[in-house]
Amino acid sequence: MADFNLNILGCGSALPTTRHLATSQVVDLRDKLYMIDCGEGTQVQMRHMRIKFSRLNHIFISHLHGDHCFGLPGLISTLGMLGRTGELVIHAPKEIENYMRPVLDTFCKGMPYEVRFNPVDTRSHSLIMEDRSLSVYSIPLKHRIPTCGFLFAEKPKEAHIIREMTDFYQVPVRCMKDIKLGEDYVTPEGEVIPNSRLTRPAAPPKRYAYCSDTAYNPSVIPIIEGVDLLYHEATFAECDKARAKETFHSTARQAADIALKAGVKRLVIGHYSARYEDLATLHREAEEVYPGTILGAEGMVLPI
Amino acid sequence: MADFNLNILGCGSALPTTRHLATSQVVDLRDKLYMIDCGEGTQVQMRHMRIKFSRLNHIFISHLHGDHCFGLPGLISTLGMLGRTGELVIHAPKEIENYMRPVLDTFCKGMPYEVRFNPVDTRSHSLIMEDRSLSVYSIPLKHRIPTCGFLFAEKPKEAHIIREMTDFYQVPVRCMKDIKLGEDYVTPEGEVIPNSRLTRPAAPPKRYAYCSDTAYNPSVIPIIEGVDLLYHEATFAECDKARAKETFHSTARQAADIALKAGVKRLVIGHYSARYEDLATLHREAEEVYPGTILGAEGMVLPI
Repeated sequence: MADFNLNILGCGSALPTTRHLATSQVVDLRDKLYMIDCGEGTQVQMRHMRIKFSRLNHIFISHLHGDHCFGLPGLISTLGMLGRTGELVIHAPKEIENYMRPVLDTFCKGMPYEVRFNPVDTRSHSLIMEDRSLSVYSIPLKHRIPTCGFLFAEKPKEAHIIREMTDFYQVPVRCMKDIKLGEDYVTPEGEVIPNSRLTRPAAPPKRYAYCSDTAYNPSVIPIIEGVDLLYHEATFAECDKARAKETFHSTARQAADIALKAGVKRLVIGHYSARYEDLATLHREAEEVYPGTILGAEGMVLPI
Repeated sequence: MADFNLNILGCGSALPTTRHLATSQVVDLRDKLYMIDCGEGTQVQMRHMRIKFSRLNHIFISHLHGDHCFGLPGLISTLGMLGRTGELVIHAPKEIENYMRPVLDTFCKGMPYEVRFNPVDTRSHSLIMEDRSLSVYSIPLKHRIPTCGFLFAEKPKEAHIIREMTDFYQVPVRCMKDIKLGEDYVTPEGEVIPNSRLTRPAAPPKRYAYCSDTAYNPSVIPIIEGVDLLYHEATFAECDKARAKETFHSTARQAADIALKAGVKRLVIGHYSARYEDLATLHREAEEVYPGTILGAEGMVLPI
């Protein structure tokens, strides 16, 4: 398994079916977990996919429609019962407190950990959170209510030391950190050993973009340009394009069009309307525009 | 299938597992549906069990712990999306409005139907609702927060007309209704034909009792005496009896003891703690006291 993965827990839309669960994903970067959306049933699906509750510290909610957040009360309660003590941060449109505060007050008194809400401005592309390995940015989307997607950008990693070379030049241990960060080495005799002779560059940092729910919205293109993986909603087939426009959703072809124009490296689609028993049409319509489109499915794990 | 059935949608307890879902049941009386508790995932389980959303008009909530009511927001939203227009009544402890009003205000604006809350006094055994075919009563239980069970009592049905006899006595159609209700028939000549010669008695009305969550509580016995089917929680095995007492739950043996003392016709247990991978111990401990105890399971349909 790669060290930066996307787990798809659910990729259905508002009406639940026996084929698809409500939206939820978990981004896994070297065993630190970041959840995106949390539809009803998310915690049970975490069990099925063996995703560790204890590794989760941040949840990002794209918008306040039930199929993207009705799993929060159950998940938050369960984390408490499992004895969690560390803070859990929920990054979401500010209205989430109107919904979640009464839930916390009614059901979560005496929980051993804190839930903190970080209000997200869905209208701007801005930094929401960062830690040592990752930055997460909002992506303004066009939906019936305030909604944003999320861009997960891995931070540049340190270069790899070429052990044979540092041994050869007898580089002291105390200099290693600076060399990893790109500095040259100067020997006691004053000779400058260029960094490029001592290190191999780290793998370039990866980026993942999540765009759901949204109408066809080319203004996201500059933000997601060239990402390693794009998840884009594809609620409807072309025959239901009018319905897509009316409900501020995308067709599979529109998702592929965004992916193509943004030059992303891979596209995975989801958020399928319950009306399609068979997703072959959506898949074909996306593939005609963006060959190799991945049809998202519950339980899928994709390297980013 | 009988015309009065219990559908078990979920019979796990607070911590979700891959083996059991949170609590929910649907009582089905001649195609009218009455839900008891609505844990997370209930609406998806309704799909799996092919239970018709449109036949549901009443939901009874035993108490405000998440594993008994976190499925309500999703189910209520889905009913709206399916175009429901008729009122839905939620019978529950009055505090449910603190939890559900903000949910309705945030997620259910413009829904095509009304949700009405009927506050239930969990401390008294009293009539909560009745319609033409059924009366539902509260059963006070002993749990950490206000909690009650529910007694579903079918109303007496009309007697069956013996067609050969009414033909023989040339009973006019207009008299049939009274005869079904027990009246004798008087011929034009003044001869009294006793009702018992014209009808066969209807099947005796059935009763179902739901007791979850509760500590061992013999005060329910007079209320549930002789019911056709009792569901009693059995969260723990005897080895965890102290834990049962501490958390106001029952062991399987205590559930069986209540069933035996109340002389119920059949017992089904559920609400199993996540700690038991295998339920054989719980089943055996219940069977030692009440032979024939049914081990409740997701997807089970039991005639009442």
